[in-house]
Amino acid sequence: MKFSINRDQFVQSVQHVSKAISPRTTIPVLTGIKIEASFDGVTLTGSDSDISIESFIPLEDEEIQNVELEQPGSIVLPARFFAEIVKKLPEDTIELSVSEQFVTTLKSGSSVFNLNGLDPNEYPRLPEIEEDNVFKLKTDLLKNIIRQTVFAVSTVETRPILTGVHWAIEEGTLACTATDSHRLAMRNAKAETNTNDLSFSNVVIPGKSLNELSKILDDNEEWVDIIVTENQILFKAKNLLFFSRLLDGNYPATNNMIPTNSKTNVKLETKKFMQAIERALLLSRDGKNNVVNLKTLSNTHLEITSVTPEVGKVTEDVATLDFNGEELRISFNGKNIIDALRVIDSTEVTIDFTGAMSPFVIKPTEHENMLHLFSPVRTY
Amino acid sequence: MKFSINRDQFVQSVQHVSKAISPRTTIPVLTGIKIEASFDGVTLTGSDSDISIESFIPLEDEEIQNVELEQPGSIVLPARFFAEIVKKLPEDTIELSVSEQFVTTLKSGSSVFNLNGLDPNEYPRLPEIEEDNVFKLKTDLLKNIIRQTVFAVSTVETRPILTGVHWAIEEGTLACTATDSHRLAMRNAKAETNTNDLSFSNVVIPGKSLNELSKILDDNEEWVDIIVTENQILFKAKNLLFFSRLLDGNYPATNNMIPTNSKTNVKLETKKFMQAIERALLLSRDGKNNVVNLKTLSNTHLEITSVTPEVGKVTEDVATLDFNGEELRISFNGKNIIDALRVIDSTEVTIDFTGAMSPFVIKPTEHENMLHLFSPVRTY
Repeated sequence: MKFSINRDQFVQSVQHVSKAISPRTTIPVLTGIKIEASFDGVTLTGSDSDISIESFIPLEDEEIQNVELEQPGSIVLPARFFAEIVKKLPEDTIELSVSEQFVTTLKSGSSVFNLNGLDPNEYPRLPEIEEDNVFKLKTDLLKNIIRQTVFAVSTVETRPILTGVHWAIEEGTLACTATDSHRLAMRNAKAETNTNDLSFSNVVIPGKSLNELSKILDDNEEWVDIIVTENQILFKAKNLLFFSRLLDGNYPATNNMIPTNSKTNVKLETKKFMQAIERALLLSRDGKNNVVNLKTLSNTHLEITSVTPEVGKVTEDVATLDFNGEELRISFNGKNIIDALRVIDSTEVTIDFTGAMSPFVIKPTEHENMLHLFSPVRTY
Repeated sequence: MKFSINRDQFVQSVQHVSKAISPRTTIPVLTGIKIEASFDGVTLTGSDSDISIESFIPLEDEEIQNVELEQPGSIVLPARFFAEIVKKLPEDTIELSVSEQFVTTLKSGSSVFNLNGLDPNEYPRLPEIEEDNVFKLKTDLLKNIIRQTVFAVSTVETRPILTGVHWAIEEGTLACTATDSHRLAMRNAKAETNTNDLSFSNVVIPGKSLNELSKILDDNEEWVDIIVTENQILFKAKNLLFFSRLLDGNYPATNNMIPTNSKTNVKLETKKFMQAIERALLLSRDGKNNVVNLKTLSNTHLEITSVTPEVGKVTEDVATLDFNGEELRISFNGKNIIDALRVIDSTEVTIDFTGAMSPFVIKPTEHENMLHLFSPVRTY
């Protein structure tokens, strides 16, 4: 194998596929990046066997020459060193050639690296996926969906299924749900489908996969094709394939958890409410449960308080924009509320309480594609 | 005690004095910030008994009212919480008042914090320093001196005296030296003195103190007064006092370590030389000794190489701007060279080698106030 390649293109592809590579893998060849040069272009692959990422650099793209191919072939190079090296090479072009015993030479200007490579035939093949049932989302919408749900997944492994985000499609609407059993985030979006009757549920994508995918995708309006199989999901963007394993098991039924009535309804400015809770959390010591108390003071004000006996007490006064229903005292995990308010993308929110010991719902006022549910905390 | 204060001024002062506070102190009152309000203004103090910082906010400064004093007094408040709180309070003004049992109330807009304070009488007094022997440096020069020496101090505690920077003054010239016994940085500067015969040596300032001082000082041309006593140094800037303990013990004599002859002299572009060494270090595994080999190739080129058998080899070619003397092969710690080249502030440097097993000197070509000395590494 021998080719010359545009450094910036190469650096970006290496960074993308590196996102899939775990230094803690037990399969030696997966510590490397697979590089394959063909008459179409150069393909890079990284994988930790849960996530696999393939990035393609065409020989030519929009009349710009990315790659000059002298001889096709393939090699696996140590990811950690390789990513650092390509970033720091001095010139705009990098020449890569493989000699005997997988020894690979990288040249750029006055700089020459000889790296010990690995046998590309030992690298596992990516899953082959049939593209019968495809739907698609614009990249920026996909990134928003991820941002607005994945924060709510569980980070403890006691119920592995809750470390993923549940996706379901029915009648062209994608419903994404994440919960750690104390709070739940739900986001709906219209998806373009290639068949009218595409429908699935119980597709649970690991939160980690969605986070890595989101980091790789640029904010733009290009389409991402999404294909779901029994145990894999594939995201196809321009010159990029992102495979993730799906989580095994049954996701809990969440629809019936959401209260439909409301005993106390308040409307608040998102930012003022969030800042008041942030200040209320300032006296919580590390590792504490972030408990914040809320009390309706009148039709026009809420009082938010937090006490840490050895340190002191915070009292915050928040004006309500609207108030209906009963007086209320309730305690909750303030950090969970802040997580939701950060992604809600609405200057005002409504909260529907159903009593001091029942879950409550926060919704944006400016759009209807999102809902956040919270369990209260018992403080006595 | 009761006063209202401009939040931004207060935040800055709190951040400054917090730099001296260590969460690991064994003296409970030193986990706090001392706040003292008088008819002149508000004084904040932080200390870990090695470093003490005092920041003063005058009632009025350049016709801007910073503080409205209702009642003088003092209190000690928990530093970690307090610094976070003042930063996040909602309005431009903060009202602080102390009631019985040192309970302190902070009010700002709709936000009220009650904090458990500590008895200010338990707070240790700052050292009293006689100002007989004062010299002064402009702030930006002082910051440069620190940046260009402190990186070379030892980080291991086997020879505590080497964790500090040695300062000496003679005939109005300040000489600052730092070494970890493998490399040495020396920086000279003219200092303004109030007496013609001010002279001292064996003043060793902890590297940590200088780093913290540098973080607090803004880049400007205002004078900093510096006063040295037997076991303390005091830096006096506008509304700021910075005290540091000096290190006990005798600093090694370093002047006779610097070779005066040269067998091989090369002149190089600083940036190209630095980038070549950075790339040569890319294959060093964590915790390795960062060994880089240098070989003169001809009168016009150097070859820099580094080998890590299990990973590969780097070969870099660096053009020399000038070359005099003998051919040479030498090995050294590349990271130490990079540290020095980063602070040398000259687009070209000269290196004087005195043989493969002897220390060598790197100097800037554009000024004469600095010198870096390095021991070679034996590679056989």
